[in-house]
Amino acid sequence: MSKIDRASFPHWVTVTLRYSDQDPMGHINNVVYGAYFAEGRNAYIGQLVKRVAPPNIDFVLAGVKIDYRREMHYPGQVEVGSGVLRIGNKSLTLRHELFKDGEPIAGAESVLVFIDTSTGTSVSVPQEVRQVLAGDIAN
Amino acid sequence: MSKIDRASFPHWVTVTLRYSDQDPMGHINNVVYGAYFAEGRNAYIGQLVKRVAPPNIDFVLAGVKIDYRREMHYPGQVEVGSGVLRIGNKSLTLRHELFKDGEPIAGAESVLVFIDTSTGTSVSVPQEVRQVLAGDIAN
Amino acid sequence: MSKIDRASFPHWVTVTLRYSDQDPMGHINNVVYGAYFAEGRNAYIGQLVKRVAPPNIDFVLAGVKIDYRREMHYPGQVEVGSGVLRIGNKSLTLRHELFKDGEPIAGAESVLVFIDTSTGTSVSVPQEVRQVLAGDIAN
Amino acid sequence: MSKIDRASFPHWVTVTLRYSDQDPMGHINNVVYGAYFAEGRNAYIGQLVKRVAPPNIDFVLAGVKIDYRREMHYPGQVEVGSGVLRIGNKSLTLRHELFKDGEPIAGAESVLVFIDTSTGTSVSVPQEVRQVLAGDIAN
Repeated sequence: MSKIDRASFPHWVTVTLRYSDQDPMGHINNVVYGAYFAEGRNAYIGQLVKRVAPPNIDFVLAGVKIDYRREMHYPGQVEVGSGVLRIGNKSLTLRHELFKDGEPIAGAESVLVFIDTSTGTSVSVPQEVRQVLAGDIAN
Repeated sequence: MSKIDRASFPHWVTVTLRYSDQDPMGHINNVVYGAYFAEGRNAYIGQLVKRVAPPNIDFVLAGVKIDYRREMHYPGQVEVGSGVLRIGNKSLTLRHELFKDGEPIAGAESVLVFIDTSTGTSVSVPQEVRQVLAGDIAN
Repeated sequence: MSKIDRASFPHWVTVTLRYSDQDPMGHINNVVYGAYFAEGRNAYIGQLVKRVAPPNIDFVLAGVKIDYRREMHYPGQVEVGSGVLRIGNKSLTLRHELFKDGEPIAGAESVLVFIDTSTGTSVSVPQEVRQVLAGDIAN
Repeated sequence: MSKIDRASFPHWVTVTLRYSDQDPMGHINNVVYGAYFAEGRNAYIGQLVKRVAPPNIDFVLAGVKIDYRREMHYPGQVEVGSGVLRIGNKSLTLRHELFKDGEPIAGAESVLVFIDTSTGTSVSVPQEVRQVLAGDIAN
């Protein structure tokens, strides 16, 4: 992998590891990484949408992709960096990287689509969300 | 422990084990047992309350107690037996036992209290629930 | 999405949903889908590797990609179909689809790499594994 | 409940809540409380046993009891206080309390038994562990 630049992730959240996150290999189980990235996604976009989007607009996760770079061990905490990869017409693609003890452990991409909860139909990425995120797009 | 009589549990539910339920000891992690017992509780009382109790009556878990009898290993499935230990005025105490491959693995007790969701206050165990459960009390 | 052909998945496993798999939206939480797919992966390849590969050969998950097609609700069970998308020199890519009540809910791809546990280095997909899986490649 | 005195818990650990810890009621799911208490138990006794007990001595969880005092909501973090309730001949009973935003949320007791991992038999609570914990017993 190429060098991972922490400065390219504008948003960060910290998650504490749990004993029960481990599997019989003595590693953090790969499924649980999804929960760590979800914390990054929710803290970044979930709070932004609540703050700036119209009240009837919410988002759902359409897809997620995780690259496992190296094993990770309990105990401790991870830092999840999040940023924007692409703002499409109908979807928003985030990028995330998980660090523990200064080392990049796994990367992820999340594809979000927006919905009008009053009609249940998908809508464009809200203008208010685009504006805030415009500066967060990875170069 | 004394012999555990499967026939004393009137309600049963089956739960499949998951790889991620395991911990670094290569056992099923003790925290996850709580999820197995919750399946027994929900399938037994959750569905009963929905069926016979007034619509504004629900229950919450006030306490749970688990006795771990022996280790358990993935893969496979567990059977959770549930019954009634005591019907008090304000609380209902359930008893549960977890079996895998015919062996008792862990026992549990759950204390449920009932609430009127329209007022948020606790209420007596509903008469309709008492009547159905009267025959399920352990002798 | 194009029609999803169940017959194209040679391996199937059933997982029971748990109350605690749900999130505040009243859906099955998207992170937990990863655990369902892991059951498919482990039951399919984990057991095959144990059966036919040399004892010092194991595999690790290098990447996973999930497409969320529709919401899913508790209670019930899911069926996870698994098959082979590609057998590369150094990696094996699986394809999976999750069904509930006859409906496709989510698709996934898993990239596995093989390692020699005695040296910790990555190795080619073992010949014994290739042979068994050759007939399972999606057309 | 009587007033819960934070000063009576000699050991503390912090756990971050996760979105996926929630259930359809919009609360933290009661099963997950077990994971929070496990963090308290492991950080308190797991590390102590590793530090002072003979290398062939380990402990297993024989029982756990949780009292749910009030609902808890995401996001945020919890503090888990742990102390000693009783040191018996063959078992050690811990007491725990979970706080969020300064409020006591749930209490727990954990019963630990010690084993000689070289023989698989249960043994007395190690003298080295007793000595360290003697000062932590609740009055």
